[in-house]
Amino acid sequence: MLKVAVVGASGFSGAELVRLLLQHPQVTLTAATAETFSGQTLSQVYPAFGSQGDRITLTSLASTELNLDTAQVVFLALPHGEAALLAPKLLAQKIKVIDLSGDFRFPDTQVYTTWYGATHPAPEWARQAVYGLPELNREAIKHARLIANPGCYATAAILALLPLVKAGWVEPGSLLVDAKSGSTGAGRKAKLETQFTSLSENVVPYKLAGVHQHTPEIEQALAQIAGAPVSLLLTPQLVPARRGILALAYAKLSRNRNLTAAELVAHYEQTYASEPCVEVRSEAEAWPDLATAVGTNTCVIKPGVDPRTGWVVVAASLDNLGKGAAGQAVQNLNLMQGWPENSGLPAIGWVP
Amino acid sequence: MLKVAVVGASGFSGAELVRLLLQHPQVTLTAATAETFSGQTLSQVYPAFGSQGDRITLTSLASTELNLDTAQVVFLALPHGEAALLAPKLLAQKIKVIDLSGDFRFPDTQVYTTWYGATHPAPEWARQAVYGLPELNREAIKHARLIANPGCYATAAILALLPLVKAGWVEPGSLLVDAKSGSTGAGRKAKLETQFTSLSENVVPYKLAGVHQHTPEIEQALAQIAGAPVSLLLTPQLVPARRGILALAYAKLSRNRNLTAAELVAHYEQTYASEPCVEVRSEAEAWPDLATAVGTNTCVIKPGVDPRTGWVVVAASLDNLGKGAAGQAVQNLNLMQGWPENSGLPAIGWVP
Amino acid sequence: MLKVAVVGASGFSGAELVRLLLQHPQVTLTAATAETFSGQTLSQVYPAFGSQGDRITLTSLASTELNLDTAQVVFLALPHGEAALLAPKLLAQKIKVIDLSGDFRFPDTQVYTTWYGATHPAPEWARQAVYGLPELNREAIKHARLIANPGCYATAAILALLPLVKAGWVEPGSLLVDAKSGSTGAGRKAKLETQFTSLSENVVPYKLAGVHQHTPEIEQALAQIAGAPVSLLLTPQLVPARRGILALAYAKLSRNRNLTAAELVAHYEQTYASEPCVEVRSEAEAWPDLATAVGTNTCVIKPGVDPRTGWVVVAASLDNLGKGAAGQAVQNLNLMQGWPENSGLPAIGWVP
Amino acid sequence: MLKVAVVGASGFSGAELVRLLLQHPQVTLTAATAETFSGQTLSQVYPAFGSQGDRITLTSLASTELNLDTAQVVFLALPHGEAALLAPKLLAQKIKVIDLSGDFRFPDTQVYTTWYGATHPAPEWARQAVYGLPELNREAIKHARLIANPGCYATAAILALLPLVKAGWVEPGSLLVDAKSGSTGAGRKAKLETQFTSLSENVVPYKLAGVHQHTPEIEQALAQIAGAPVSLLLTPQLVPARRGILALAYAKLSRNRNLTAAELVAHYEQTYASEPCVEVRSEAEAWPDLATAVGTNTCVIKPGVDPRTGWVVVAASLDNLGKGAAGQAVQNLNLMQGWPENSGLPAIGWVP
Repeated sequence: MLKVAVVGASGFSGAELVRLLLQHPQVTLTAATAETFSGQTLSQVYPAFGSQGDRITLTSLASTELNLDTAQVVFLALPHGEAALLAPKLLAQKIKVIDLSGDFRFPDTQVYTTWYGATHPAPEWARQAVYGLPELNREAIKHARLIANPGCYATAAILALLPLVKAGWVEPGSLLVDAKSGSTGAGRKAKLETQFTSLSENVVPYKLAGVHQHTPEIEQALAQIAGAPVSLLLTPQLVPARRGILALAYAKLSRNRNLTAAELVAHYEQTYASEPCVEVRSEAEAWPDLATAVGTNTCVIKPGVDPRTGWVVVAASLDNLGKGAAGQAVQNLNLMQGWPENSGLPAIGWVP
Repeated sequence: MLKVAVVGASGFSGAELVRLLLQHPQVTLTAATAETFSGQTLSQVYPAFGSQGDRITLTSLASTELNLDTAQVVFLALPHGEAALLAPKLLAQKIKVIDLSGDFRFPDTQVYTTWYGATHPAPEWARQAVYGLPELNREAIKHARLIANPGCYATAAILALLPLVKAGWVEPGSLLVDAKSGSTGAGRKAKLETQFTSLSENVVPYKLAGVHQHTPEIEQALAQIAGAPVSLLLTPQLVPARRGILALAYAKLSRNRNLTAAELVAHYEQTYASEPCVEVRSEAEAWPDLATAVGTNTCVIKPGVDPRTGWVVVAASLDNLGKGAAGQAVQNLNLMQGWPENSGLPAIGWVP
Repeated sequence: MLKVAVVGASGFSGAELVRLLLQHPQVTLTAATAETFSGQTLSQVYPAFGSQGDRITLTSLASTELNLDTAQVVFLALPHGEAALLAPKLLAQKIKVIDLSGDFRFPDTQVYTTWYGATHPAPEWARQAVYGLPELNREAIKHARLIANPGCYATAAILALLPLVKAGWVEPGSLLVDAKSGSTGAGRKAKLETQFTSLSENVVPYKLAGVHQHTPEIEQALAQIAGAPVSLLLTPQLVPARRGILALAYAKLSRNRNLTAAELVAHYEQTYASEPCVEVRSEAEAWPDLATAVGTNTCVIKPGVDPRTGWVVVAASLDNLGKGAAGQAVQNLNLMQGWPENSGLPAIGWVP
Repeated sequence: MLKVAVVGASGFSGAELVRLLLQHPQVTLTAATAETFSGQTLSQVYPAFGSQGDRITLTSLASTELNLDTAQVVFLALPHGEAALLAPKLLAQKIKVIDLSGDFRFPDTQVYTTWYGATHPAPEWARQAVYGLPELNREAIKHARLIANPGCYATAAILALLPLVKAGWVEPGSLLVDAKSGSTGAGRKAKLETQFTSLSENVVPYKLAGVHQHTPEIEQALAQIAGAPVSLLLTPQLVPARRGILALAYAKLSRNRNLTAAELVAHYEQTYASEPCVEVRSEAEAWPDLATAVGTNTCVIKPGVDPRTGWVVVAASLDNLGKGAAGQAVQNLNLMQGWPENSGLPAIGWVP
């Protein structure tokens, strides 16, 4: 059994990681830290963990460094900025790190500075980190010591647009992603904006007009595919759901290009044919909705085209805590260890 | 007191119309029809009408034609196709008609045939009808005998894009509207897709890739402004809210055009300066969310721009049963009668 | 126009009061205070107030005492404890006070101490205050200088049980109220328990087993009716709704007493026959649900009986911010001023 | 691998059964029937089944009798009345049957007739069936050929009251259960009452005053414990959640009996000490809410007492499709086969 630890286990992504790791057949959890809740059991913080959570006591990072020491892989589910300080210490001890924050997503740390508003404290590690999107970087992930796990919106947006950008069928300046996220995407901390009274029966746009920090990692990944710079607009919105992201990606067909929905579907199916965590829906199948992938590690995608206007629209749905965070982190772990890519990941979601 | 009647009062738009008309200081309701529920009181169908609803019995159209006869204005809240058959009979009796269906929205009935899949039974009336968006056609509305009340998505989309199209600042081929609607927009009839179990904590896209029937009326209205054909993509989605539409409209700035958010806001404020039912928000104010206008007859709008990519994004929020249907119908009535435009319309929405 | 002021206008009850008072034909609002948000307009705190809210700036209590001075009636929507300190100062200036907190609900301040955990700072005023439930104390309210506006759960529970206790048909020890409240009942402050992620698709019981502070005011009111001490259990629960309370009140028929549902309904109808803000539903009508009275100042009640077990069940539904707080406060104002009891109160709720 | 089949797989309980059985390590699914959807894959009806659901085609009962033939255990998830006709045919072929309907829950078929309004077609089988609540009938379940799987409300109510009734501490006539259920409890069929517009932000009581058909099975089970007839009132309510039941059970302490919360908890803990699917919470722990057990096969219970009034209140929370239906059916299967009682059942629920 591989020894793993989770740093930041009381946040939503951290808790979901613990849930997945407890059910993973090849790992054993040696520590789960949470500063605010240290000393409490997991079930005190999240009663749904039941009796299994009664047996896990959250510890503070300071008191558990020895346990981290014994871990072979450590997952960091910390706020931006904190991961960049801790990861180098763990890596120096030959511990592999899978970081769920934005800290190591940009080899060019100038991008980090621009979008996250801080100088990067470990630029050499930022350059060595592998962006942990298996559908983009599978081989590099297998040999990585430090994984920068992608953002939730970014995973949906990249997977929605990757085949399109790869094919080169659309106008480069026309890319746009209108994305809706469940409330867990806004974090666990009590805030007025995420009160039930504020969010029930509402849809709340935020960080509009090009300022969301997942934008540069989407552009960076698509540029890697395109072999040229890519720019796009990302519009995030909170919706009254606990989990799930539905991203609608738009792009305009290049002038004089004709393309049927069937051709688009065929291209998407071919691109993702061997992907265990991407499901492409055909013309005859329903458009994915926000709930469709909740509870799974799958990103469900369906492309379509409006022949009249030339707009391509691609719907991509995933669980923001699954394929958008903790599930993808486990998928990366599986790749790093040479295990079946889906090991420990749920095959079926919430039904109904 | 003006005598008015509502045909189709058991559907959501019809019921909202009755609610508004009961509170309108200048009208008296002579009949409210509903085929399936005829003989029941309004409160049996909608208990929230309370004792006031106990005093109103829904009648069948057949049995109430005499009462319609005594009405000076009749509102039609019928399914597409039915209004086109009934309206000419009323108009022939010199009764004014405000129709909430799509039947009279297109002077060119070929457009109707293309999008609604039927030959228009009264093309001469379709040509005479006035598209009842006060911000576009106020003068014509004042003298109209037959009003085609706009669709809910259409109202939000047109008001979001009208100032932009008028200014000519954006690329004509780049227009796109991603819109989210509450469940009342899907009608009252019991359907699997609108069950609580299907829609709670979900976002459900439908009629994607350019097939929603509100598309041509948006294009028609914007073309009237632009003086040239306009085409756009409309993406509708159902969200877990009973009421409200949030439309995010996107357009790309024309090449070499620079524009600040402040300039955009100033232009929108100027365009809508004297509009009683449009509220423009400035840079310092919050982006409107879906709930912000529920319960009112106001469309709340805020424009912004991403200087990096050149995308303009405009958020427009309204109550799909208010400014998107029944409220706008009353606004049109007020204009037709020469009353204050806001007469009988609520000034403040649901707080909180 | 009567000059009124609201102290504590940024909380949910205070904001609802402002909303109602702005639409009240006989009053003018001279001040609305809110310590945390002073200097902001009402619309900055609650965008749904729209342009009307733009014209009202929230002030701090300290800076507005002069304005309160000019008010003839002041509504206090403050936390428990604060109202008891402020009210005497206003009363000393001959300003009438309608207090929405629990501070003046108990003539016997020992009860206050037991349930609110504090010594009462103004016991002489507590003795003079009138408990502002019009259905119980209408005449006293008309001549009161200080109104203790009832709690939301208490209003529903008392109105549900009053006719039953008055008739003396049930076993005194069998009274029980299981009540569900919308999230606005938990106040506006950001808390983990009322985050969307915590409350969506959930029902959360709290203060179980007899510790909710509305218990003694229900017992006190029912004892006033019964002419003897009454005790009961109140079980509060938060449900995923913004507004509304549904209280199910239970009592066991006295031994050997037989009673049909029709007899119960007749007795309830008779008891509330002249009440403008209580609606009794008959056997043939639907049981009230939580949403039925939202947006109104009505309490909708339906009694029933299980002849097999002898249990009586009474469902009472009201808007926790309407008849359960701000609406009832306005009803009390109307009585104090000798105006029509429903003046300025909405007759029809949220439809649909 | 044990061969099992599910009859009625398109309803919510049937679909949840299929989901659990697909993940059960000791069974293989030979058939899943659904009349309305026969010929469609499981994923067409429930997209959340993903690729695993693509491989399962729903069949009609008529066409699959041969497959049922090869099944060793058949689960019936049919409407009341249909199961009673099919089960005898399967039992005659030596196939074991676990029936999720109410058809075989009453050895005394007169009770069935009274509450379900029909003469029982197979009274001899009704007498032989074992009521499948493991906490009550574990030994009999192990040897049963026909299991009557309990109702969802009944499971929560019985587990809440069983220790109390066993101890004989409460007045027999004082039992009362106020229970809230998620929307899946109302079935999959499209109905006005369960439309999103009807149920969102609402709580809807139904079958009030003693007419819900789960009442007699609760009374029957408690009478088995008490050794004497038991009667109670059950009040069901629909709440805006897809899954979950929260039952609050009430009973009055017998005169002169004193009991602390600690004593109650100790008694509950002792009663359920060896139960794998019941979790008792102590005084220091949170009251269970509706969501706490969703996704699991656990019933979470916490008892309390109000010393002032003598009311005992017990909160019991379970997943209506889990321990309240499909999960409990699998627990029964495990007992019948001599497998670990929790085999194939999820240990951790939805977090968060």
